[in-house]
Amino acid sequence: MAVKDELGDLFVESRGFGAEALTEEELEKLKELSRLCKGDILKMTSLAGSGHPGGSFSSLDIYLVLYTCAKVYPHEPERPDRDRIVVSHGHTSPGVYSVLARLGFFSREEAIATFRKAGSLFEGHVERVIPGVEWTTGNLGQGLSVGCGFALASRLTGVPYHVYVVMSDAEQAKGQVAEARRFAKKFGLSNITVIIDYNELQISGSVHEVMPVNIKGNYLSDGWEVMEVDGHDHQALYKAVRESLRREGPVVIVAHTVMGKGVSFMEGDEEYHGRALKEGELAQAFRELEVENDRPRLLSIREAFSASNEPVSMPRYTPRVDPGQPFTYRPEDKVDNRSAFGKALRDVGLRNCGVEGQTPIAVFDCDLADSVRTSWFAQDLPSYFFESGVSEHNTAALAGALSTQGVVALFADFGVFGIDEVYNQHRLNDINGSNIKLILTHLGLDVGQDGKTHQCIDYIGLLKNLYGFHLVVPADANQMDRAVRYIFTRYGNYAIGMGRSGQPIIVDEKGEPLFGYGYRFVYGQADVVRKGDKATIITYGQMVHRALKAWETLSEKGMEVELLNMSTPLHPDREALVRAAAKGPVIVYEDHNLFSGLGSILSDLAVEMGLSVRIRKMGVKGYAPSGTPHELYRMLGLSPDDLVKVVEEEIHG
Amino acid sequence: MAVKDELGDLFVESRGFGAEALTEEELEKLKELSRLCKGDILKMTSLAGSGHPGGSFSSLDIYLVLYTCAKVYPHEPERPDRDRIVVSHGHTSPGVYSVLARLGFFSREEAIATFRKAGSLFEGHVERVIPGVEWTTGNLGQGLSVGCGFALASRLTGVPYHVYVVMSDAEQAKGQVAEARRFAKKFGLSNITVIIDYNELQISGSVHEVMPVNIKGNYLSDGWEVMEVDGHDHQALYKAVRESLRREGPVVIVAHTVMGKGVSFMEGDEEYHGRALKEGELAQAFRELEVENDRPRLLSIREAFSASNEPVSMPRYTPRVDPGQPFTYRPEDKVDNRSAFGKALRDVGLRNCGVEGQTPIAVFDCDLADSVRTSWFAQDLPSYFFESGVSEHNTAALAGALSTQGVVALFADFGVFGIDEVYNQHRLNDINGSNIKLILTHLGLDVGQDGKTHQCIDYIGLLKNLYGFHLVVPADANQMDRAVRYIFTRYGNYAIGMGRSGQPIIVDEKGEPLFGYGYRFVYGQADVVRKGDKATIITYGQMVHRALKAWETLSEKGMEVELLNMSTPLHPDREALVRAAAKGPVIVYEDHNLFSGLGSILSDLAVEMGLSVRIRKMGVKGYAPSGTPHELYRMLGLSPDDLVKVVEEEIHG
Repeated sequence: MAVKDELGDLFVESRGFGAEALTEEELEKLKELSRLCKGDILKMTSLAGSGHPGGSFSSLDIYLVLYTCAKVYPHEPERPDRDRIVVSHGHTSPGVYSVLARLGFFSREEAIATFRKAGSLFEGHVERVIPGVEWTTGNLGQGLSVGCGFALASRLTGVPYHVYVVMSDAEQAKGQVAEARRFAKKFGLSNITVIIDYNELQISGSVHEVMPVNIKGNYLSDGWEVMEVDGHDHQALYKAVRESLRREGPVVIVAHTVMGKGVSFMEGDEEYHGRALKEGELAQAFRELEVENDRPRLLSIREAFSASNEPVSMPRYTPRVDPGQPFTYRPEDKVDNRSAFGKALRDVGLRNCGVEGQTPIAVFDCDLADSVRTSWFAQDLPSYFFESGVSEHNTAALAGALSTQGVVALFADFGVFGIDEVYNQHRLNDINGSNIKLILTHLGLDVGQDGKTHQCIDYIGLLKNLYGFHLVVPADANQMDRAVRYIFTRYGNYAIGMGRSGQPIIVDEKGEPLFGYGYRFVYGQADVVRKGDKATIITYGQMVHRALKAWETLSEKGMEVELLNMSTPLHPDREALVRAAAKGPVIVYEDHNLFSGLGSILSDLAVEMGLSVRIRKMGVKGYAPSGTPHELYRMLGLSPDDLVKVVEEEIHG
Repeated sequence: MAVKDELGDLFVESRGFGAEALTEEELEKLKELSRLCKGDILKMTSLAGSGHPGGSFSSLDIYLVLYTCAKVYPHEPERPDRDRIVVSHGHTSPGVYSVLARLGFFSREEAIATFRKAGSLFEGHVERVIPGVEWTTGNLGQGLSVGCGFALASRLTGVPYHVYVVMSDAEQAKGQVAEARRFAKKFGLSNITVIIDYNELQISGSVHEVMPVNIKGNYLSDGWEVMEVDGHDHQALYKAVRESLRREGPVVIVAHTVMGKGVSFMEGDEEYHGRALKEGELAQAFRELEVENDRPRLLSIREAFSASNEPVSMPRYTPRVDPGQPFTYRPEDKVDNRSAFGKALRDVGLRNCGVEGQTPIAVFDCDLADSVRTSWFAQDLPSYFFESGVSEHNTAALAGALSTQGVVALFADFGVFGIDEVYNQHRLNDINGSNIKLILTHLGLDVGQDGKTHQCIDYIGLLKNLYGFHLVVPADANQMDRAVRYIFTRYGNYAIGMGRSGQPIIVDEKGEPLFGYGYRFVYGQADVVRKGDKATIITYGQMVHRALKAWETLSEKGMEVELLNMSTPLHPDREALVRAAAKGPVIVYEDHNLFSGLGSILSDLAVEMGLSVRIRKMGVKGYAPSGTPHELYRMLGLSPDDLVKVVEEEIHG
């Protein structure tokens, strides 16, 4: 799709902001491009009948200076050492597309004609699949976190580049931006320059009225350097950016702009934030811009366009991670799943971080490293460990971005912080094809006595909505060890879940570790913990050893039931369900919300597969009190004794 | 449960921070209480074997001054004009409980003996069910948003009181706090005083190392007044708080404290943040505090304690809202569901806001009022409309808190911002028994051409996890009008969902509005749109009129199928499903994530009810591109034609 750019021999010296200033000729070119791009933007949005011309105009000159002078390569858009330009206010896509097209990243005609048409690359908000676009955005306030992730990746991979983040003024009101600012400052990310398009307007009117934000004061108070510049003056923009590269950083450039700049009636009117121009308006705008109106021709291209059904894949690297050798815990070892995770993580970390040719692993913590057992990794690999304090939104988004740049990112947190609080950040990561390893501890009712605000009983219900996510909830330390090693060898979003308490090692009927020497973790495969033919208990995680207790009682009573561990609840083992259905009733036993856990997934699957099976669900029916797990399971009808009772009911009717 | 307090005749003059200073006698009493409460805290946490003594000690003197001198009433804890004291760092529960018990809010013995035991009121984090506790917290960074909600409630209900928010230093790193600060400033909430327990330690160590936050600079830059004080000097605390009441506000008091203050070996050691003392430590601490060790007696009370199974209900008011008369749109009216919502909202607003004896309604917007159609309400009732800009987390939490204080709170936003981004805030609202009306627009694929970051195709999958939430996705403007009026007459969390596009008015076979004059909205009841007996199509919202198109085609082909509108997907109509199962196959047709939408809920229900039924699910199988709804439904196999095809397949096999 690469095409010829319109720059000729210009911008050679100024590439990478090397020259002290832009030449007259370069300034002329930028002026010309600015005019032409505005025409392109109006064509795009009017052909689509929607889109955001106002903000595109106001950010346009920033985009022009950045994309012409940063180290980006139209014919090699994925070059590893390219500068990263992150557009946080993704609705200015017409502005971005118009510039990238003029610089030869892709066909201008295609971008203009197919903008926002189903199946076109050129979606409503900027998309990572487009050459030159680094991150799919749209939800505001994410860009600086993403930029921090990229900046960190440069440090960890040793590939030098600069990161530019362009943001709107309105999104400065979002708290996540403050979190990202502090992260950048704490970790000395001097390879970031933020440029804020300060047009003082947002959808609902003046930024000073909608939600006043002291932008300059906020950045200063968080230790950033602040510069101000006319955001339509190419030379001034160039010099400011150039200067920012020479400062300690991080630096924010507040670029004073005018929404709708360049078309008289659009200037300073928020009405044009999010609507295309009407016919008469358009004619006048084209006249003012001295741009030819070739819409009829473009329209016919648009109408003829039909999407290929081939999904466009996002750029992704192949992680090269040595997972090491599985470690087998013996039944007499006292070990909780958290510690088994922490030990495996340290082992994998030591084998790969800083080792030539291996993909490094970065670990993120939000003030719970001891509790989530990332502290051993932190001790041994301090330069790969990032303590972010109580700022989960930035951390989740940042880790997602980093994970796409040749580094595996692992974010470990209590379930309620790691997924409930940052669900949307993971959704956006998933949309961006990230490679995040999400460790969720303190799941279910097994959270000590911290009570309902800390009980994560919805992680399956949440992750089920994210198409790209996998989830493993290992039954014991041995399965945990193997699952942890496994997820590092796969590209993609993998969550691993666990409770807080120590768990016995699950053994087979001979007393040997079930997930020991002969066992290999296979994603999506259920494990037969005990055999039986009267009924099947299906469970996972911290409930397995409780189910095993129940199984023993049942066995003593002469009731032989099958006990299955389904450690990948988002992708349950279909064949195992078929086998279970053939035996008799299925009892799903979990300390998850009854309405959204494995029980509901298996019921759904049974109907889909046309299986005739009775499924009895045991789970959590309401927000639960605080107490020890033992107390809670009894109180809520989820103890091994309760399971025995339910199985008996199901068998004897 | 009210018991005698230990204050005698003290604090009469200083109540409400009236007296210029505390008397010597009062200071003596506070000193004494501080010592005794520390003993109580250590007993509590050691009996429970967990909890947070360190932070409880450091916040203790703040709690003592606030609970003795603010206008709170041990024997009338719900008095409407009481001051609201919000504890944001809910893990300091032992500190809060010890003070409230000594002041006579409840039995000291019970609080100490049953702390963190399952079934006890005295949970690990402060809980709203406890007399004197205003909000269940635990997840950090929420308290100031809650305080803003309370402060606004005072303004809207005309009941005068002051709001005190006590926060930790570590949670200042959370972005939501900045959002709340700006909200308080923008709306001139001068009835808030924030006190930050600045002990400079958090779980992982020094706040200056974990994540440096320029607390003073941040508050100043957001326009707050800042005071500093020794957080263990009762007189200084008293005077600072008193002064804050006289300032323009909002005011933050940074209280310099020492974690573990009062026990030599605990002071300044973050190890005691989150663990109970061991036996030897405890003995030494009791000696230092000169506190009697009556743990054996308390332990026996703890062991004898058995929870009643009666759920303790949270305080709630009875909303008195006049819903007005339903409005019926005619088939020839061009109206989208958003506008029908907006008109009904304005009508209900005008009938109740500022009307003597009626419960006021407050509407919250995050810079999308025109798009979500709250702008008409805003125009006519500007003092009940709160524009929050791009700051969804604070807005959701604040609206939840406000909604418990005699005001109905309505928060309207695009689905991805209103639920995906703030899922956890709604979880916490739900835990707190809020009365929020959540309006989610731009649901499904019907979002204009904004693309995947803006497509909310997971709202059912998310809301399903929240036990207290209801959801209505009306089929047309008439059902919308009735649903909107309905939710205002109920206490509780109700979401209403809709797409973006205009929808035809659904009519019956005579061409009359189906949801017109004779129709009354009943939550949980399915509507028969068309009758038939070969199969049943079940759908809701923006898919109903598409399904009706398919129905017509099928009917022309001689296939009479039933068409059901199930507008309350979280609580589907069981009887309707039974009737459908009796007819034949069920086709669930929705533009929601296939794995977590109504189809999966119905499958789950069918298995639970033991129904033998074939359910064919049509839904969204992956993140979708941007495009018009029409294009997208075709591309993704969700057009009326696709539905016809699927129904035919199901009928003919």
